[in-house]
Amino acid sequence: MTEFVKGDLLYTGKAKEMYVTNDPEVLWVEYLDQATALNGKRKVAIDQKGLLNNRISSLIFQDLAQHGIENHFIDQLSDHVQLVRRVSMIPLETVVRNAASGSFERKFAVPHLTEFATPVMEFFYKSDQLDDPFINDSQIEALGVATAATLTEMRRQALLVNQRLQTIFGEMNVQLVDFKIEFGMTAAGQVLLADEISPDSCRLVDLTTHESLDKDVFRKNLGDLTTVYQEVLRRLASVEGGQQ
Amino acid sequence: MTEFVKGDLLYTGKAKEMYVTNDPEVLWVEYLDQATALNGKRKVAIDQKGLLNNRISSLIFQDLAQHGIENHFIDQLSDHVQLVRRVSMIPLETVVRNAASGSFERKFAVPHLTEFATPVMEFFYKSDQLDDPFINDSQIEALGVATAATLTEMRRQALLVNQRLQTIFGEMNVQLVDFKIEFGMTAAGQVLLADEISPDSCRLVDLTTHESLDKDVFRKNLGDLTTVYQEVLRRLASVEGGQQ
Ligand SMILES: Nc1ncnc2c1ncn2[C@@H]1O[C@H](COP(=O)(O)OP(=O)(O)O)[C@@H](O)[C@H]1O
Ligand SMILES: Nc1ncnc2c1ncn2[C@@H]1O[C@H](COP(=O)(O)OP(=O)(O)O)[C@@H](O)[C@H]1O
Ligand SMILES: [Mg+2]
Ligand SMILES: [Mg+2]
Repeated sequence: MTEFVKGDLLYTGKAKEMYVTNDPEVLWVEYLDQATALNGKRKVAIDQKGLLNNRISSLIFQDLAQHGIENHFIDQLSDHVQLVRRVSMIPLETVVRNAASGSFERKFAVPHLTEFATPVMEFFYKSDQLDDPFINDSQIEALGVATAATLTEMRRQALLVNQRLQTIFGEMNVQLVDFKIEFGMTAAGQVLLADEISPDSCRLVDLTTHESLDKDVFRKNLGDLTTVYQEVLRRLASVEGGQQ
Repeated sequence: MTEFVKGDLLYTGKAKEMYVTNDPEVLWVEYLDQATALNGKRKVAIDQKGLLNNRISSLIFQDLAQHGIENHFIDQLSDHVQLVRRVSMIPLETVVRNAASGSFERKFAVPHLTEFATPVMEFFYKSDQLDDPFINDSQIEALGVATAATLTEMRRQALLVNQRLQTIFGEMNVQLVDFKIEFGMTAAGQVLLADEISPDSCRLVDLTTHESLDKDVFRKNLGDLTTVYQEVLRRLASVEGGQQ
Protein backbone atom coordinates (compact mmCIF):
# COMPACT_ATOMS: atom_id res chain seq x y z
CA MET A 1 0.00 0.00 0.00
CA THR A 2 1.14 3.55 -0.74
CA GLU A 3 2.50 5.56 2.16
CA PHE A 4 -0.17 7.93 3.50
CA VAL A 5 0.92 11.17 5.11
CA LYS A 6 -1.16 12.82 7.82
CA GLY A 7 -2.18 16.35 6.85
CA ASP A 8 -4.26 19.14 8.40
CA LEU A 9 -6.97 18.58 10.97
CA LEU A 10 -10.29 18.63 9.16
CA TYR A 11 -12.75 18.10 12.00
CA THR A 12 -12.71 17.34 15.73
CA GLY A 13 -15.72 15.25 16.71
CA LYS A 14 -16.84 13.90 20.04
CA ALA A 15 -15.00 10.59 19.56
CA LYS A 16 -12.59 11.04 16.67
CA GLU A 17 -10.32 13.54 14.94
CA MET A 18 -10.38 13.55 11.16
CA TYR A 19 -7.28 14.65 9.22
CA VAL A 20 -6.75 15.01 5.48
CA THR A 21 -3.91 13.04 3.88
CA ASN A 22 -1.78 13.42 0.76
CA ASP A 23 -4.61 11.58 -1.05
CA PRO A 24 -7.71 13.81 -1.35
CA GLU A 25 -9.92 10.72 -1.27
CA VAL A 26 -8.50 9.38 1.98
CA LEU A 27 -8.95 10.57 5.58
CA TRP A 28 -6.77 9.81 8.59
CA VAL A 29 -9.01 9.05 11.59
CA GLU A 30 -7.70 9.22 15.15
CA TYR A 31 -9.93 7.49 17.69
CA LEU A 32 -9.77 9.50 20.94
CA ASP A 33 -9.41 8.15 24.48
CA GLN A 34 -12.49 10.01 25.67
CA ALA A 35 -16.21 9.51 26.12
CA THR A 36 -18.98 12.08 25.92
CA ALA A 37 -22.62 11.98 26.94
CA LEU A 38 -25.58 14.36 26.69
CA ASN A 39 -24.49 15.53 23.23
CA GLY A 40 -20.99 16.39 24.43
CA LYS A 41 -22.04 18.29 27.55
CA ARG A 42 -20.27 15.66 29.65
CA LYS A 43 -16.74 14.65 28.52
CA VAL A 44 -14.33 12.31 30.32
CA ALA A 45 -10.94 10.81 29.45
CA ILE A 46 -11.16 7.02 29.24
CA ASP A 47 -8.05 4.88 29.20
CA GLN A 48 -7.64 2.88 25.95
CA LYS A 49 -11.11 3.74 24.63
CA GLY A 50 -9.79 5.05 21.30
CA LEU A 51 -7.61 2.00 20.81
CA LEU A 52 -10.45 -0.38 21.61
CA ASN A 53 -13.03 1.33 19.40
CA ASN A 54 -10.55 1.63 16.57
CA ARG A 55 -9.84 -2.09 16.71
CA ILE A 56 -13.49 -3.08 17.13
CA SER A 57 -14.64 -0.78 14.33
CA SER A 58 -11.86 -2.02 12.03
CA LEU A 59 -12.77 -5.66 12.62
CA ILE A 60 -16.48 -4.98 12.02
CA PHE A 61 -15.95 -2.92 8.87
CA GLN A 62 -13.66 -5.60 7.47
CA ASP A 63 -16.21 -8.29 8.24
CA LEU A 64 -19.00 -6.29 6.60
CA ALA A 65 -16.90 -5.73 3.46
CA GLN A 66 -16.18 -9.47 3.32
CA HIS A 67 -19.94 -10.01 3.48
CA GLY A 68 -20.65 -7.68 0.58
CA ILE A 69 -21.47 -4.52 2.53
CA GLU A 70 -19.11 -1.90 1.16
CA ASN A 71 -17.96 0.79 3.58
CA HIS A 72 -15.42 3.56 4.03
CA PHE A 73 -12.79 1.46 5.88
CA ILE A 74 -9.41 1.17 4.16
CA ASP A 75 -6.89 0.08 6.78
CA GLN A 76 -5.99 0.24 10.45
CA LEU A 77 -2.61 2.01 10.61
CA SER A 78 -1.89 1.88 14.34
CA ASP A 79 -3.55 1.60 17.74
CA HIS A 80 -5.52 4.81 17.36
CA VAL A 81 -5.38 5.43 13.61
CA GLN A 82 -7.58 4.21 10.79
CA LEU A 83 -7.59 5.22 7.12
CA VAL A 84 -11.01 5.68 5.53
CA ARG A 85 -12.43 6.77 2.23
CA ARG A 86 -13.51 10.41 2.39
CA VAL A 87 -17.17 10.95 1.67
CA SER A 88 -19.58 13.81 1.94
CA MET A 89 -21.47 12.93 5.11
CA ILE A 90 -25.27 12.78 5.06
CA PRO A 91 -26.19 14.53 8.34
CA LEU A 92 -28.47 11.77 9.57
CA GLU A 93 -28.05 9.14 12.22
CA THR A 94 -29.73 5.94 11.08
CA VAL A 95 -30.95 3.95 14.06
CA VAL A 96 -31.97 0.30 13.74
CA ARG A 97 -33.76 -1.32 16.66
CA ASN A 98 -34.34 -5.02 17.23
CA ALA A 99 -35.82 -4.49 20.69
CA ALA A 100 -37.20 -1.54 22.64
CA SER A 101 -34.77 0.52 24.67
CA GLY A 102 -33.69 4.12 25.24
CA SER A 103 -35.80 6.82 23.61
CA PHE A 104 -38.20 4.30 22.01
CA GLU A 105 -39.00 2.72 25.35
CA ARG A 106 -39.46 6.13 27.00
CA LYS A 107 -41.56 7.62 24.21
CA PHE A 108 -43.94 4.72 23.78
CA ALA A 109 -43.92 3.28 27.30
CA VAL A 110 -43.30 -0.28 26.10
CA PRO A 111 -41.52 -2.80 28.34
CA HIS A 112 -37.72 -2.78 28.19
CA LEU A 113 -36.33 -5.06 25.46
CA THR A 114 -39.69 -5.88 23.88
CA GLU A 115 -38.63 -7.54 20.62
CA PHE A 116 -39.87 -6.24 17.28
CA ALA A 117 -41.15 -8.60 14.58
CA THR A 118 -39.35 -6.42 12.02
CA PRO A 119 -36.50 -4.04 12.88
CA VAL A 120 -37.58 -0.49 13.63
CA MET A 121 -35.73 2.24 11.75
CA GLU A 122 -35.41 5.87 12.74
CA PHE A 123 -33.53 8.86 11.44
CA PHE A 124 -32.14 11.64 13.62
CA TYR A 125 -30.98 14.90 12.13
CA LYS A 126 -27.33 15.32 13.13
CA SER A 127 -27.15 18.84 14.49
CA ASP A 128 -25.61 19.66 17.87
CA GLN A 129 -27.42 23.03 17.86
CA LEU A 130 -30.82 21.38 17.34
CA ASP A 131 -29.99 18.50 19.72
CA ASP A 132 -30.20 15.80 17.01
CA PRO A 133 -33.98 15.82 16.56
CA PHE A 134 -35.92 12.74 15.48
CA ILE A 135 -36.97 13.39 11.87
CA ASN A 136 -39.18 11.67 9.31
CA ASP A 137 -38.72 11.15 5.57
CA SER A 138 -41.01 14.00 4.61
CA GLN A 139 -39.14 16.47 6.82
CA ILE A 140 -35.77 15.19 5.56
CA GLU A 141 -36.85 15.82 1.98
CA ALA A 142 -38.37 19.24 2.78
CA LEU A 143 -35.17 20.38 4.48
CA GLY A 144 -33.10 19.12 1.53
CA VAL A 145 -31.10 16.81 3.82
CA ALA A 146 -31.51 13.75 1.56
CA THR A 147 -33.72 12.57 -1.28
CA ALA A 148 -36.28 9.80 -1.04
CA ALA A 149 -34.02 7.60 -3.18
CA THR A 150 -31.08 8.13 -0.82
CA LEU A 151 -33.24 7.22 2.19
CA THR A 152 -34.40 4.04 0.47
CA GLU A 153 -30.79 3.07 -0.18
CA MET A 154 -29.77 3.90 3.42
CA ARG A 155 -32.60 1.73 4.72
CA ARG A 156 -31.63 -1.13 2.42
CA GLN A 157 -28.01 -1.06 3.57
CA ALA A 158 -28.96 -0.56 7.23
CA LEU A 159 -31.04 -3.74 7.16
CA LEU A 160 -28.13 -5.70 5.66
CA VAL A 161 -25.78 -4.28 8.31
CA ASN A 162 -28.29 -5.30 10.98
CA GLN A 163 -28.50 -8.86 9.66
CA ARG A 164 -24.74 -9.30 9.61
CA LEU A 165 -24.21 -7.58 13.00
CA GLN A 166 -26.86 -9.80 14.58
CA THR A 167 -24.92 -12.84 13.37
CA ILE A 168 -21.57 -11.54 14.64
CA PHE A 169 -22.92 -10.48 18.04
CA GLY A 170 -24.97 -13.65 18.35
CA GLU A 171 -21.75 -15.64 18.03
CA MET A 172 -20.30 -13.41 20.77
CA ASN A 173 -23.23 -14.33 23.09
CA VAL A 174 -24.43 -10.74 22.83
CA GLN A 175 -27.85 -9.37 21.97
CA LEU A 176 -27.76 -6.49 19.49
CA VAL A 177 -30.58 -4.36 20.90
CA ASP A 178 -30.05 -1.37 18.58
CA PHE A 179 -27.33 0.59 16.83
CA LYS A 180 -26.65 3.82 15.02
CA ILE A 181 -24.79 4.17 11.74
CA GLU A 182 -23.93 7.06 9.44
CA PHE A 183 -23.67 7.17 5.69
CA GLY A 184 -21.84 9.43 3.28
CA MET A 185 -22.05 10.05 -0.43
CA THR A 186 -19.11 9.35 -2.73
CA ALA A 187 -18.23 11.74 -5.56
CA ALA A 188 -19.86 9.21 -7.89
CA GLY A 189 -23.12 9.45 -5.91
CA GLN A 190 -22.85 6.12 -4.10
CA VAL A 191 -24.33 5.91 -0.60
CA LEU A 192 -21.47 4.49 1.49
CA LEU A 193 -21.48 3.28 5.08
CA ALA A 194 -19.01 5.46 7.03
CA ASP A 195 -18.17 6.72 10.54
CA GLU A 196 -17.79 3.89 13.09
CA ILE A 197 -19.47 0.79 14.48
CA SER A 198 -18.43 0.24 18.06
CA PRO A 199 -19.89 -0.17 21.55
CA ASP A 200 -20.26 3.63 21.46
CA SER A 201 -22.89 3.29 18.76
CA CYS A 202 -24.45 -0.08 19.58
CA ARG A 203 -26.63 -1.15 22.50
CA LEU A 204 -25.28 -4.56 23.49
CA VAL A 205 -26.46 -6.92 26.21
CA ASP A 206 -24.73 -10.10 27.36
CA LEU A 207 -27.14 -12.93 26.60
CA THR A 208 -26.26 -14.80 29.80
CA THR A 209 -25.71 -12.12 32.44
CA HIS A 210 -27.91 -9.43 30.81
CA GLU A 211 -25.21 -6.87 31.56
CA SER A 212 -24.69 -3.87 29.29
CA LEU A 213 -21.62 -4.15 27.08
CA ASP A 214 -21.73 -0.67 25.59
CA LYS A 215 -21.58 3.06 26.28
CA ASP A 216 -24.57 2.77 28.64
CA VAL A 217 -21.92 1.63 31.17
CA PHE A 218 -20.59 5.19 30.94
CA ARG A 219 -23.94 7.00 30.50
CA LYS A 220 -25.41 5.28 33.55
CA ASN A 221 -22.20 4.81 35.59
CA LEU A 222 -22.58 1.02 35.62
CA GLY A 223 -18.88 0.19 35.92
CA ASP A 224 -15.54 0.49 34.16
CA LEU A 225 -15.94 1.20 30.44
CA THR A 226 -12.44 0.04 29.52
CA THR A 227 -12.97 -3.42 31.03
CA VAL A 228 -16.28 -3.80 29.20
CA TYR A 229 -14.95 -2.66 25.81
CA GLN A 230 -11.95 -5.00 26.26
CA GLU A 231 -14.38 -7.85 26.75
CA VAL A 232 -16.29 -6.90 23.58
CA LEU A 233 -13.02 -6.81 21.63
CA ARG A 234 -11.90 -10.14 23.10
CA ARG A 235 -15.09 -11.89 21.97
CA LEU A 236 -15.15 -10.14 18.60
CA ALA A 237 -11.53 -11.04 17.86
CA SER A 238 -12.21 -14.65 18.71
CA VAL A 239 -15.27 -14.72 16.41
CA GLU A 240 -13.39 -12.98 13.62
CA GLY A 241 -10.53 -15.41 14.12
CA GLY A 242 -8.08 -12.55 13.83
CA GLN A 243 -5.70 -10.79 16.15
CA GLN A 244 -6.83 -8.33 18.77
CA MET B 1 -84.00 11.07 6.49
CA THR B 2 -84.82 8.64 9.27
CA GLU B 3 -85.23 10.02 12.73
CA PHE B 4 -82.05 9.48 14.78
CA VAL B 5 -82.34 9.14 18.52
CA LYS B 6 -79.53 10.20 20.83
CA GLY B 7 -78.32 7.32 22.99
CA ASP B 8 -75.61 6.78 25.60
CA LEU B 9 -72.50 8.89 25.90
CA LEU B 10 -69.69 6.97 24.24
CA TYR B 11 -66.75 9.30 24.75
CA THR B 12 -66.05 12.79 26.06
CA GLY B 13 -63.19 14.39 24.20
CA LYS B 14 -61.52 17.76 24.55
CA ALA B 15 -63.79 19.43 22.01
CA LYS B 16 -66.73 17.09 21.42
CA GLU B 17 -69.00 14.55 23.07
CA MET B 18 -69.79 11.43 21.10
CA TYR B 19 -73.08 9.58 21.67
CA VAL B 20 -74.39 6.40 20.14
CA THR B 21 -77.71 6.51 18.33
CA ASN B 22 -80.42 3.99 17.48
CA ASP B 23 -78.32 3.18 14.40
CA PRO B 24 -75.12 1.33 15.35
CA GLU B 25 -73.33 2.85 12.36
CA VAL B 26 -74.17 6.44 13.29
CA LEU B 27 -72.77 8.67 16.04
CA TRP B 28 -74.30 11.82 17.49
CA VAL B 29 -71.57 14.45 17.93
CA GLU B 30 -72.00 17.45 20.22
CA TYR B 31 -69.51 20.23 19.65
CA LEU B 32 -68.67 21.79 23.01
CA ASP B 33 -68.41 25.49 23.86
CA GLN B 34 -64.94 25.08 25.33
CA ALA B 35 -61.32 25.29 24.30
CA THR B 36 -58.36 23.36 25.67
CA ALA B 37 -54.63 23.81 25.28
CA LEU B 38 -51.52 21.95 26.44
CA ASN B 39 -53.22 18.58 25.83
CA GLY B 40 -56.21 19.47 27.96
CA LYS B 41 -54.27 20.87 30.90
CA ARG B 42 -55.83 24.29 30.25
CA LYS B 43 -59.61 24.34 29.63
CA VAL B 44 -61.83 27.40 29.21
CA ALA B 45 -65.49 27.91 28.29
CA ILE B 46 -65.77 29.84 25.03
CA ASP B 47 -69.06 31.36 23.95
CA GLN B 48 -70.43 29.85 20.71
CA LYS B 49 -67.26 27.87 19.92
CA GLY B 50 -69.12 24.57 19.56
CA LEU B 51 -71.73 26.12 17.30
CA LEU B 52 -69.08 27.78 15.13
CA ASN B 53 -66.89 24.69 14.78
CA ASN B 54 -69.88 22.47 14.10
CA ARG B 55 -71.00 24.76 11.28
CA ILE B 56 -67.49 25.21 9.87
CA SER B 57 -66.72 21.50 10.03
CA SER B 58 -70.07 20.63 8.43
CA LEU B 59 -69.51 23.04 5.54
CA ILE B 60 -65.98 21.73 4.95
CA PHE B 61 -66.94 18.05 5.10
CA GLN B 62 -69.82 18.68 2.68
CA ASP B 63 -67.50 20.50 0.32
CA LEU B 64 -64.92 17.69 0.47
CA ALA B 65 -67.58 15.06 -0.25
CA GLN B 66 -68.75 17.11 -3.24
CA HIS B 67 -65.16 17.09 -4.44
CA GLY B 68 -64.82 13.34 -4.22
CA ILE B 69 -63.23 13.08 -0.78
CA GLU B 70 -65.49 10.77 1.19
CA ASN B 71 -65.73 11.39 4.93
CA HIS B 72 -67.77 10.51 8.03
CA PHE B 73 -70.13 13.52 7.86
CA ILE B 74 -73.81 12.68 7.49
CA ASP B 75 -75.80 15.73 8.54
CA GLN B 76 -75.83 18.78 10.78
CA LEU B 77 -78.84 18.36 13.09
CA SER B 78 -78.72 21.55 15.11
CA ASP B 79 -76.38 24.32 16.25
CA HIS B 80 -74.19 21.98 18.27
CA VAL B 81 -75.05 18.56 16.84
CA GLN B 82 -73.73 16.65 13.88
CA LEU B 83 -74.41 13.08 12.79
CA VAL B 84 -71.42 11.10 11.57
CA ARG B 85 -70.64 7.62 10.40
CA ARG B 86 -69.12 5.61 13.22
CA VAL B 87 -65.68 4.25 12.46
CA SER B 88 -62.91 2.58 14.40
CA MET B 89 -60.50 5.48 14.91
CA ILE B 90 -56.86 5.06 13.90
CA PRO B 91 -55.04 6.66 16.85
CA LEU B 92 -52.88 8.95 14.71
CA GLU B 93 -53.02 12.63 14.04
CA THR B 94 -52.03 13.27 10.44
CA VAL B 95 -50.43 16.69 10.09
CA VAL B 96 -49.97 18.33 6.69
CA ARG B 97 -47.77 21.42 6.49
CA ASN B 98 -47.54 23.88 3.61
CA ALA B 99 -45.27 26.25 5.52
CA ALA B 100 -43.13 26.05 8.66
CA SER B 101 -44.77 26.85 11.97
CA GLY B 102 -45.22 25.44 15.47
CA SER B 103 -43.24 22.35 16.35
CA PHE B 104 -41.59 22.14 12.91
CA GLU B 105 -40.26 25.67 13.17
CA ARG B 106 -39.01 25.08 16.73
CA LYS B 107 -37.43 21.69 16.04
CA PHE B 108 -35.58 22.65 12.89
CA ALA B 109 -35.00 26.38 13.54
CA VAL B 110 -36.30 27.43 10.13
CA PRO B 111 -37.82 30.90 9.63
CA HIS B 112 -41.53 31.22 10.44
CA LEU B 113 -43.77 30.43 7.45
CA THR B 114 -40.99 29.17 5.18
CA GLU B 115 -42.95 27.56 2.34
CA PHE B 116 -42.32 23.94 1.40
CA ALA B 117 -41.97 22.88 -2.24
CA THR B 118 -44.02 19.78 -1.41
CA PRO B 119 -46.30 19.50 1.65
CA VAL B 120 -44.64 18.01 4.72
CA MET B 121 -46.53 15.16 6.39
CA GLU B 122 -46.17 14.00 9.96
CA PHE B 123 -47.92 11.48 12.17
CA PHE B 124 -48.43 11.89 15.89
CA TYR B 125 -49.50 8.99 18.06
CA LYS B 126 -52.77 10.02 19.75
CA SER B 127 -52.19 9.21 23.40
CA ASP B 128 -52.82 11.70 26.19
CA GLN B 129 -50.65 9.61 28.55
CA LEU B 130 -47.70 9.68 26.15
CA ASP B 131 -48.31 13.35 25.21
CA ASP B 132 -49.05 12.60 21.53
CA PRO B 133 -45.48 11.75 20.46
CA PHE B 134 -44.23 12.34 16.93
CA ILE B 135 -43.95 8.90 15.32
CA ASN B 136 -42.60 7.49 12.07
CA ASP B 137 -43.94 4.76 9.79
CA SER B 138 -41.61 2.11 11.11
CA GLN B 139 -42.62 2.77 14.72
CA ILE B 140 -46.31 2.85 13.76
CA GLU B 141 -45.99 -0.58 12.16
CA ALA B 142 -43.92 -2.00 15.04
CA LEU B 143 -46.50 -0.86 17.59
CA GLY B 144 -49.30 -2.31 15.47
CA VAL B 145 -51.02 1.08 15.23
CA ALA B 146 -51.49 0.89 11.45
CA THR B 147 -50.14 -1.05 8.50
CA ALA B 148 -47.95 0.39 5.77
CA ALA B 149 -50.88 0.14 3.35
CA THR B 150 -53.14 2.13 5.69
CA LEU B 151 -50.48 4.85 6.03
CA THR B 152 -50.14 5.06 2.26
CA GLU B 153 -53.89 5.50 1.94
CA MET B 154 -53.96 8.12 4.73
CA ARG B 155 -51.20 10.07 3.00
CA ARG B 156 -53.01 9.88 -0.33
CA GLN B 157 -56.24 11.22 1.14
CA ALA B 158 -54.44 13.82 3.25
CA LEU B 159 -52.84 15.29 0.13
CA LEU B 160 -56.22 15.49 -1.59
CA VAL B 161 -57.73 17.16 1.48
CA ASN B 162 -54.84 19.63 1.48
CA GLN B 163 -55.37 20.50 -2.17
CA ARG B 164 -59.06 21.16 -1.72
CA LEU B 165 -58.60 23.04 1.58
CA GLN B 166 -55.96 25.26 -0.02
CA THR B 167 -58.47 26.20 -2.70
CA ILE B 168 -61.27 26.91 -0.21
CA PHE B 169 -59.09 28.95 2.14
CA GLY B 170 -57.40 30.74 -0.77
CA GLU B 171 -60.83 31.97 -1.86
CA MET B 172 -61.35 33.16 1.73
CA ASN B 173 -58.11 35.21 1.53
CA VAL B 174 -56.59 32.87 4.07
CA GLN B 175 -53.28 30.98 4.00
CA LEU B 176 -53.57 27.35 5.08
CA VAL B 177 -50.27 26.98 6.94
CA ASP B 178 -50.94 23.50 8.29
CA PHE B 179 -53.72 21.28 9.59
CA LYS B 180 -54.40 18.07 11.47
CA ILE B 181 -56.88 15.39 10.45
CA GLU B 182 -57.87 12.00 11.81
CA PHE B 183 -58.94 8.88 9.99
CA GLY B 184 -60.98 5.87 10.98
CA MET B 185 -61.54 2.46 9.52
CA THR B 186 -64.98 1.30 8.40
CA ALA B 187 -66.17 -2.25 9.08
CA ALA B 188 -65.42 -2.94 5.41
CA GLY B 189 -61.80 -1.86 5.90
CA GLN B 190 -62.07 1.52 4.18
CA VAL B 191 -59.88 4.35 5.51
CA LEU B 192 -62.34 7.19 6.08
CA LEU B 193 -61.69 10.82 6.98
CA ALA B 194 -63.37 11.50 10.34
CA ASP B 195 -63.24 13.79 13.40
CA GLU B 196 -63.38 17.50 12.50
CA ILE B 197 -61.82 20.16 10.30
CA SER B 198 -62.11 23.55 11.96
CA PRO B 199 -59.96 26.46 13.12
CA ASP B 200 -59.14 24.22 16.13
CA SER B 201 -57.24 21.88 13.84
CA CYS B 202 -55.97 24.25 11.13
CA ARG B 203 -53.35 26.98 11.29
CA LEU B 204 -54.85 29.86 9.32
CA VAL B 205 -53.37 33.27 8.54
CA ASP B 206 -55.18 36.20 6.91
CA LEU B 207 -53.36 36.85 3.64
CA THR B 208 -53.73 40.62 3.98
CA THR B 209 -53.33 41.38 7.69
CA HIS B 210 -51.25 38.27 8.55
CA GLU B 211 -53.37 37.80 11.66
CA SER B 212 -54.04 34.33 13.05
CA LEU B 213 -57.54 33.04 12.36
CA ASP B 214 -57.33 29.85 14.41
CA LYS B 215 -56.87 28.36 17.87
CA ASP B 216 -53.48 30.11 18.21
CA VAL B 217 -55.62 33.13 19.19
CA PHE B 218 -56.52 31.11 22.28
CA ARG B 219 -53.16 29.34 22.78
CA LYS B 220 -51.25 32.64 22.63
CA ASN B 221 -53.97 34.95 24.03
CA LEU B 222 -54.05 37.05 20.86
CA GLY B 223 -57.65 38.18 21.18
CA ASP B 224 -61.24 36.98 21.25
CA LEU B 225 -61.61 33.49 19.79
CA THR B 226 -65.34 33.80 19.15
CA THR B 227 -64.90 36.90 16.98
CA VAL B 228 -62.16 35.22 14.97
CA TYR B 229 -64.08 31.95 14.41
CA GLN B 230 -67.16 33.99 13.42
CA GLU B 231 -65.05 35.69 10.78
CA VAL B 232 -63.80 32.33 9.47
CA LEU B 233 -67.40 31.06 9.25
CA ARG B 234 -68.55 34.28 7.55
CA ARG B 235 -65.92 33.92 4.80
CA LEU B 236 -66.41 30.16 4.46
CA ALA B 237 -70.19 30.48 4.14
CA SER B 238 -69.78 33.13 1.47
CA VAL B 239 -67.36 30.91 -0.49
CA GLU B 240 -69.58 27.87 -0.10
CA GLY B 241 -72.52 29.98 -1.20
CA GLY B 242 -74.64 28.45 1.51
CA GLN B 243 -76.20 29.61 4.71
CA GLN B 244 -74.23 30.31 7.87
N1 LIG C 1 -15.57 8.66 5.70
C1 LIG C 1 -15.83 9.86 6.24
N2 LIG C 1 -15.65 10.99 5.50
C2 LIG C 1 -15.91 12.20 6.04
N3 LIG C 1 -16.35 12.39 7.29
C3 LIG C 1 -16.55 11.30 8.07
C4 LIG C 1 -16.31 9.99 7.58
N4 LIG C 1 -16.62 9.10 8.56
C5 LIG C 1 -17.07 9.83 9.61
N5 LIG C 1 -17.02 11.16 9.34
C6 LIG C 1 -17.39 12.26 10.24
O1 LIG C 1 -16.32 12.51 11.11
C7 LIG C 1 -16.81 13.18 12.27
C8 LIG C 1 -16.02 12.74 13.48
O2 LIG C 1 -16.62 11.64 14.14
P1 LIG C 1 -17.12 11.78 15.64
O3 LIG C 1 -15.99 12.10 16.56
O4 LIG C 1 -17.91 10.54 15.91
O5 LIG C 1 -18.04 13.08 15.54
P2 LIG C 1 -19.46 13.46 16.21
O6 LIG C 1 -19.12 14.40 17.31
O7 LIG C 1 -20.18 14.13 15.07
O8 LIG C 1 -20.12 12.19 16.64
C9 LIG C 1 -18.32 12.96 12.28
O9 LIG C 1 -18.95 14.18 11.94
C10 LIG C 1 -18.54 11.95 11.17
O10 LIG C 1 -19.79 12.17 10.53
N1 LIG D 1 -66.60 9.02 13.06
C1 LIG D 1 -66.08 8.76 14.25
N2 LIG D 1 -66.28 7.55 14.85
C2 LIG D 1 -65.75 7.29 16.06
N3 LIG D 1 -65.02 8.16 16.76
C3 LIG D 1 -64.78 9.38 16.22
C4 LIG D 1 -65.30 9.73 14.96
N4 LIG D 1 -64.87 10.99 14.67
C5 LIG D 1 -64.13 11.40 15.71
N5 LIG D 1 -64.07 10.45 16.66
C6 LIG D 1 -63.37 10.53 17.96
O1 LIG D 1 -64.18 11.24 18.86
C7 LIG D 1 -63.37 11.76 19.92
C8 LIG D 1 -63.91 13.11 20.35
O2 LIG D 1 -63.33 14.18 19.68
P1 LIG D 1 -62.50 15.28 20.45
O3 LIG D 1 -63.34 15.98 21.45
O4 LIG D 1 -61.83 16.09 19.39
O5 LIG D 1 -61.48 14.36 21.26
P2 LIG D 1 -59.91 14.52 21.59
O6 LIG D 1 -59.85 14.96 23.01
O7 LIG D 1 -59.37 13.13 21.38
O8 LIG D 1 -59.32 15.52 20.63
C9 LIG D 1 -61.93 11.71 19.39
O9 LIG D 1 -61.23 10.68 20.07
C10 LIG D 1 -62.09 11.33 17.94
O10 LIG D 1 -61.00 10.55 17.49
MG1 LIG E 1 -19.87 10.19 16.38
MG1 LIG F 1 -59.88 16.44 18.92
